[in-house]
Amino acid sequence: MTDYCAPVEDMRFVLKNVVGMPEIADLPGYDEATDDLVDAVLEEAGKLAGEVIGPLNHIGDQQGSVLENGVVRTPEGFKEAYWKFVEGGWNSVPFDPEIGGQGLPWTLNTAVQEMWDAANTGWSLCPMLTVGAIEAISAHGTNEQKKKYLPKLVTGEWTGTMNLTEPQAGSDVGALRSKAVRDGDAFRIHGQKIFITYGDQDYTDNVIHLVLARIEGAPDGVKGISLFIVPKVLVNDDGSLGRRNDLRPVSLEHKLGIHASPTCVMAYGENDGAIGYLIGEENNGMACMFTMMNNARLNVGVAGLGTAERAWQQARDFAKERTQGRDIATGEQNVPIIRHPDVRRMLLDMKAKTEAMRALCYYTAARMDVAKKHPDADTRRTAQRDLDLLIPITKAWCTDTGCDVAHTGVQVHGGMGFVEETGAAQHMRDARIHPIYEGTNGIQANDLIGRKILRDGGEAAKAFTNRLRTEACAIAGSGNDDVAATGKAIAASVGAIDAAVDWILSTGPIDIQKASANSVPMLNLMGNVVGGWLMGKAAAAAVSEGVNGHAAWCGAKIKTARFYADHILSRSSGLLATIAESGDTVMALKEDQF
Amino acid sequence: MTDYCAPVEDMRFVLKNVVGMPEIADLPGYDEATDDLVDAVLEEAGKLAGEVIGPLNHIGDQQGSVLENGVVRTPEGFKEAYWKFVEGGWNSVPFDPEIGGQGLPWTLNTAVQEMWDAANTGWSLCPMLTVGAIEAISAHGTNEQKKKYLPKLVTGEWTGTMNLTEPQAGSDVGALRSKAVRDGDAFRIHGQKIFITYGDQDYTDNVIHLVLARIEGAPDGVKGISLFIVPKVLVNDDGSLGRRNDLRPVSLEHKLGIHASPTCVMAYGENDGAIGYLIGEENNGMACMFTMMNNARLNVGVAGLGTAERAWQQARDFAKERTQGRDIATGEQNVPIIRHPDVRRMLLDMKAKTEAMRALCYYTAARMDVAKKHPDADTRRTAQRDLDLLIPITKAWCTDTGCDVAHTGVQVHGGMGFVEETGAAQHMRDARIHPIYEGTNGIQANDLIGRKILRDGGEAAKAFTNRLRTEACAIAGSGNDDVAATGKAIAASVGAIDAAVDWILSTGPIDIQKASANSVPMLNLMGNVVGGWLMGKAAAAAVSEGVNGHAAWCGAKIKTARFYADHILSRSSGLLATIAESGDTVMALKEDQF
Repeated sequence: MTDYCAPVEDMRFVLKNVVGMPEIADLPGYDEATDDLVDAVLEEAGKLAGEVIGPLNHIGDQQGSVLENGVVRTPEGFKEAYWKFVEGGWNSVPFDPEIGGQGLPWTLNTAVQEMWDAANTGWSLCPMLTVGAIEAISAHGTNEQKKKYLPKLVTGEWTGTMNLTEPQAGSDVGALRSKAVRDGDAFRIHGQKIFITYGDQDYTDNVIHLVLARIEGAPDGVKGISLFIVPKVLVNDDGSLGRRNDLRPVSLEHKLGIHASPTCVMAYGENDGAIGYLIGEENNGMACMFTMMNNARLNVGVAGLGTAERAWQQARDFAKERTQGRDIATGEQNVPIIRHPDVRRMLLDMKAKTEAMRALCYYTAARMDVAKKHPDADTRRTAQRDLDLLIPITKAWCTDTGCDVAHTGVQVHGGMGFVEETGAAQHMRDARIHPIYEGTNGIQANDLIGRKILRDGGEAAKAFTNRLRTEACAIAGSGNDDVAATGKAIAASVGAIDAAVDWILSTGPIDIQKASANSVPMLNLMGNVVGGWLMGKAAAAAVSEGVNGHAAWCGAKIKTARFYADHILSRSSGLLATIAESGDTVMALKEDQF
Repeated sequence: MTDYCAPVEDMRFVLKNVVGMPEIADLPGYDEATDDLVDAVLEEAGKLAGEVIGPLNHIGDQQGSVLENGVVRTPEGFKEAYWKFVEGGWNSVPFDPEIGGQGLPWTLNTAVQEMWDAANTGWSLCPMLTVGAIEAISAHGTNEQKKKYLPKLVTGEWTGTMNLTEPQAGSDVGALRSKAVRDGDAFRIHGQKIFITYGDQDYTDNVIHLVLARIEGAPDGVKGISLFIVPKVLVNDDGSLGRRNDLRPVSLEHKLGIHASPTCVMAYGENDGAIGYLIGEENNGMACMFTMMNNARLNVGVAGLGTAERAWQQARDFAKERTQGRDIATGEQNVPIIRHPDVRRMLLDMKAKTEAMRALCYYTAARMDVAKKHPDADTRRTAQRDLDLLIPITKAWCTDTGCDVAHTGVQVHGGMGFVEETGAAQHMRDARIHPIYEGTNGIQANDLIGRKILRDGGEAAKAFTNRLRTEACAIAGSGNDDVAATGKAIAASVGAIDAAVDWILSTGPIDIQKASANSVPMLNLMGNVVGGWLMGKAAAAAVSEGVNGHAAWCGAKIKTARFYADHILSRSSGLLATIAESGDTVMALKEDQF
């Protein structure tokens, strides 16, 4: 089994040469994020991920978290790794210094987040959920709530959870039934929640649950939902811990993957009601959730990337070590299987897609930093527009592609890939959750065509593709043949996006079902092309970097981009044909014809 | 969890209207395979699969087979189901009456095989392996060997295994080290084999192992390999059982899927050597293996189909029952999720691909029957040429597509898909083995471009596409708009195959690595198109059938074919672009650049 080794060189290259980390560091408040600091953060995070968190990945899968006597027990070593993470200050990296954070850019934090995800997806989910709780309380909490909960959430001394789903309310959150009854300044919460990631753990002495519930008498649907802080242990005004709240993990799900992550059924208020504190305004809970949605969706995209990187390292190392068969060109016997063209194609496919995902995730994070911090309002607005367009693409494309890469990783191993001890299969199982949670990829695709393309008449999409077209032309003008060919492939694919957007714009208003039925191919096309554009940008940068030494690495980057153009951008015409020439078949059958 | 229900209506339709079962029944020796008999066989097999074997699928996954005190214990109910299968005569369906078989066509047997695979992949592997042993002994055994082993293998009173793989000899069988030492008329076998499917079981009192080993002094590589019959319990001349042979299952693999199937590490000759009987000529073991390879590869393709069918039924039923969200067209609340266009797209994608796989598997089996039985030598030769071309496509495309369909099946379920109790995830795990064993799909793709396209200068491929082009024109001339559109899409895609074949023919002789690096896209293109052609053929047949009643079912078939054309054949241009416009990137990087 391959140990995880953070790809610091590629991370640094993408940050610096592709997504504009130097410009991010110029934003107000981000001036500490110098080149040196970026290097130091990546190196140190890489060590923790590689030496402490990564080696627990297989143990976590095999042991899983278990519920014993009403308490969750996480796998061996998980708690110790968590406290090393907390003591290193890693939980606080991206948060504002005024709430105890280090105030580093989300762009850099995204690279760091990738390491935790890649090292150990099941472990990384606990801090990932805490981020959501911090954001919600920061944005919508009272000063008192902020003072009470944020300091320990930011350090990681407490963890946070998000409680949305109920058996009848998954994608349709508005169908939830958990209720809140006013009791003085607080509320009593009653209800059952499912799929609660790290709903309990044995790391810390408190867990701060954020729970969606309906206040008695509130309207049906999403307009009657409020958000509550429901601590596992009540917190006294002096910050000390009080009595245990009326909530508990009832059971854990038996899942395909991420076994280490306790996915809890949570019961609130089985006795006299769990004490909950309203956060934000009454009936405005969904808006509070939306505050953190962009970030959460980006993070799940990053998890797709992380699992892909891990699967790629595993497959690459296996292919270099495993000997089998004859070199088809030289006839040499018993060569490492990386010498076989189809194995090499699989490896390049994994490598190219993973690097494109990395560039897309970091780029999306960079747009988020600009949208938050840039002094110029117009620049912030443009960045926000890009961000809103990119979020569903980043979440869905990176998570689908993550599954694809992990699937290919199993294939590289042949029969050994199907044996659990090898470790390749775990990545495939773990990756499978990412296209499902935080809004299924179908929901992302509907968000893309509905809110992000149809609502503004394609303005954001067209502004984005216009920029891509200009950049593709510049890349196509490179003196390097591979880079130029990649630029031409990007330009052709941008044309395919434009045609597909036009189709959505003309079809949506007259037949929204037909438009919706093509939303996933539309998203896949855009993901393929945006990923390809960033690979082209990276290749162009690698041409100049390569001149300054570092030639073999930069040469690989250029060829990897060209592979992406040949093997992935080449599919754009087919995706456009799927969208633009499709008949009315999707809705044509009656339900009983299925 | 959805119970398996054999899709008898579609099976019958494909047999009769797509792959020419009536003509198969006209072949010498197949005259019993009348319409009535076909119906009866499908109905009865469907009952056994649905009522007995299918309900054990989840139990098999959860309990798995285990090795206890040196003996394999299969999951609860597996043995009883096996004996119902044997007592029903199902093991003997396709074999010659002269060895105790029922002499029914392989085409029909393939439909029956699909049912066992779909009902319970882990269970179905045991009889599937026995088929290989029967074929090897029938084709290469002495009369005495046939008399001794075939009767009980054909009834299923004994089971068979294939022992090829060793730790250092997987895809490269020629690297095997197991040795055979002459001992009178027999041999003593010594060696360790891995990945031996049903290497032991608790169903029957004997297991007939077919083992590849190298006779002392034989040449290295594939030219020094011989095939041996190595019974678990030695068989006396009077047919009674003698003493236990020197072989044993050492351990079972912990696998991603097919948990019910005991995948054994087998030790031969740890004491004085396992008694083995040479089958066929010395050093001719690989040729003996090739005898059964076409059939074995077809069967694995059928397993891909079976798992897809099971996953599709599970997803379809869930999508009809699960309510969630608002109808995007009517605004109705809390509708079954099958009403959402993207869910419906996923379902149609699963349905269309599964039906195309079915048609391809049965068609390949039909070519096998014609190649074996047709009185005219030229017709047999043409059928064999088609068969040789179709085998790698059927094996690889149906198994890759099976994984794809099972993956989509999980997605249809949302969060419930990730929970093992739901059952969707098992299909995804089980399906993952099929692209790996019986020659990885990369090996199939190399077989396709090497032995099946380059070796005869594209003659077989071009003859096949010429026929497809003619048939596509006929389909395109249909008075039904959907059928006509499907025919046009097939015709365009056949052009893409021809261009890709030309590229292989011109590239292979000058750069075999580059050709090989495009072998998988080439195979995927051919699979997509041959599947599409058969869907078009089915749709055209459904137009006339629909007139005779049965209209809703036939209407669904037509729309499903049209969906296939719009959403799958539409990708052909992209696959051709991948192949024909690809640069030299796959072999461009040095190994240390990975």
